[in-house]
Amino acid sequence: MDTPPVPTASLLDHLRDLYENRIPFNRTLGMTVTALAPGTAKVRFAIRPELIGNPVHQTLHGGVISAVLDATGGLTASTGLVERQAGGSLDDFAALVTRVGTIDLRVDYLRPGRGETFTASGTVMRAGNKVAVIRMELHDETSVLLAVGTGTYLVG
Amino acid sequence: MDTPPVPTASLLDHLRDLYENRIPFNRTLGMTVTALAPGTAKVRFAIRPELIGNPVHQTLHGGVISAVLDATGGLTASTGLVERQAGGSLDDFAALVTRVGTIDLRVDYLRPGRGETFTASGTVMRAGNKVAVIRMELHDETSVLLAVGTGTYLVG
Amino acid sequence: MDTPPVPTASLLDHLRDLYENRIPFNRTLGMTVTALAPGTAKVRFAIRPELIGNPVHQTLHGGVISAVLDATGGLTASTGLVERQAGGSLDDFAALVTRVGTIDLRVDYLRPGRGETFTASGTVMRAGNKVAVIRMELHDETSVLLAVGTGTYLVG
Amino acid sequence: MDTPPVPTASLLDHLRDLYENRIPFNRTLGMTVTALAPGTAKVRFAIRPELIGNPVHQTLHGGVISAVLDATGGLTASTGLVERQAGGSLDDFAALVTRVGTIDLRVDYLRPGRGETFTASGTVMRAGNKVAVIRMELHDETSVLLAVGTGTYLVG
Repeated sequence: MDTPPVPTASLLDHLRDLYENRIPFNRTLGMTVTALAPGTAKVRFAIRPELIGNPVHQTLHGGVISAVLDATGGLTASTGLVERQAGGSLDDFAALVTRVGTIDLRVDYLRPGRGETFTASGTVMRAGNKVAVIRMELHDETSVLLAVGTGTYLVG
Repeated sequence: MDTPPVPTASLLDHLRDLYENRIPFNRTLGMTVTALAPGTAKVRFAIRPELIGNPVHQTLHGGVISAVLDATGGLTASTGLVERQAGGSLDDFAALVTRVGTIDLRVDYLRPGRGETFTASGTVMRAGNKVAVIRMELHDETSVLLAVGTGTYLVG
Repeated sequence: MDTPPVPTASLLDHLRDLYENRIPFNRTLGMTVTALAPGTAKVRFAIRPELIGNPVHQTLHGGVISAVLDATGGLTASTGLVERQAGGSLDDFAALVTRVGTIDLRVDYLRPGRGETFTASGTVMRAGNKVAVIRMELHDETSVLLAVGTGTYLVG
Repeated sequence: MDTPPVPTASLLDHLRDLYENRIPFNRTLGMTVTALAPGTAKVRFAIRPELIGNPVHQTLHGGVISAVLDATGGLTASTGLVERQAGGSLDDFAALVTRVGTIDLRVDYLRPGRGETFTASGTVMRAGNKVAVIRMELHDETSVLLAVGTGTYLVG
């Protein structure tokens, strides 16, 4: 192959750009990727009027929580492709990442989504070459755990 | 009690108005309630650029699907309060409905979210006076099943 | 290839024998396969003292229910390999089936497991060449729905 | 009330005896309670021929894993009733515990159930007066994580 291997950092930059800027609904959610490495990801977002679920208590909509956790899980699962892609091209990596998909998702809502800024994090629990299982957590800005999730993702 | 009992239709109208107009994130999703009766609900929404998850395939974001299914499940669970509220006031009903919350949610993504208009429907599987379990389905405009979900809701 | 293709009926017989007789814990549960075809399976079992969970109410242990639903889902997922195996040998099929595994399982317990004889059934919701998603139901002998489940299975 | 308050240790002893000796299917599984305190529980069991799921690899049946995790979650959820019961009688506590039930359960199978002795542990994630959410883990005797689960339990 003529092309030189793409550095890991470039693949991670591609993922970050994809998740922050090129997936439209992630922009609707206002997601910023604050940490990204093989096997782990962190995402931050702020409350905004259009993300409210309970107009009385001004808390996050449960669907915002499930959506952010799903996206964080997909991003974490995609980092697993970085190592597999060593020596390949950025185009190949981009094509692989496009095919990552959620098979199923469970979310446990532990406390009302009250706060200003929220952080979702993902860690790999099972890393296969077909399927990855990711555990996700959502914390508020004072590190209170608001929700946890588990997602199963098709990765190959 | 001095106030006359509120007709079921008024309670359902309250629920519909709440879910369509007064929950901000449901408006972000563009949800319209197309059917509502004790034990069942149907919700419709159209694809819009800001709901896209896969910019290559122009399909719905998985988080849109989980959010709509969660909201449809919450609406269906809330219809269970209509019968319980017979003889009570609209204010009491509104207060009860505000306390309905998702405990946990599972979504199975069966096919890519391709299409123009989508319908989510909910049916009651378990109706307790503390907890309700609702099954949700998402179909495209040609009745192809795209995703299913199950939600457990605190209702009392 | 020298060996003649194995008829579908023989592959299904292999599956039935495996699930009824050669998986030890299925014998502990007392499972009998009562229907089996590509994409669907039914399993029957009777209550026995060692399967009781609630000694006061003499109902099935929740773990018996989850175990039977998991096994029924695995059997249903394995029937999907029957068509794929057309033209192959029984040994190849047996090897494939040994690798089918549950990735994740959700069970919703709807009513207490009261009764004499129970039937678990599985239907395919998603049939991929890597992953299958199966929905399972458990009914008592009067067709009352006691529990539902969803399992994601690795099939290739 | 004439009866003196029952010490916490006696309530925990009651729970241990119930889960080890008086729930028949827990005996089928061979469960021993090795740690028990308000909010947490640990259970140990050994592999036995009748608990095998894969006759080729001699691994635990997935249904054994789901059953042990469900029972461990129920036990952990029941410890939450200990504090609530301060000042009540043992009979009241026993009656409360009998009504604890699993609403739903998710199990993620991370690695094959290979080993000799297994430990399941439960921790409380959400402790309400109606519903508790428990996270469970299953490790082998070398502390390798084999499976995780989440259960939602009705506790009042």
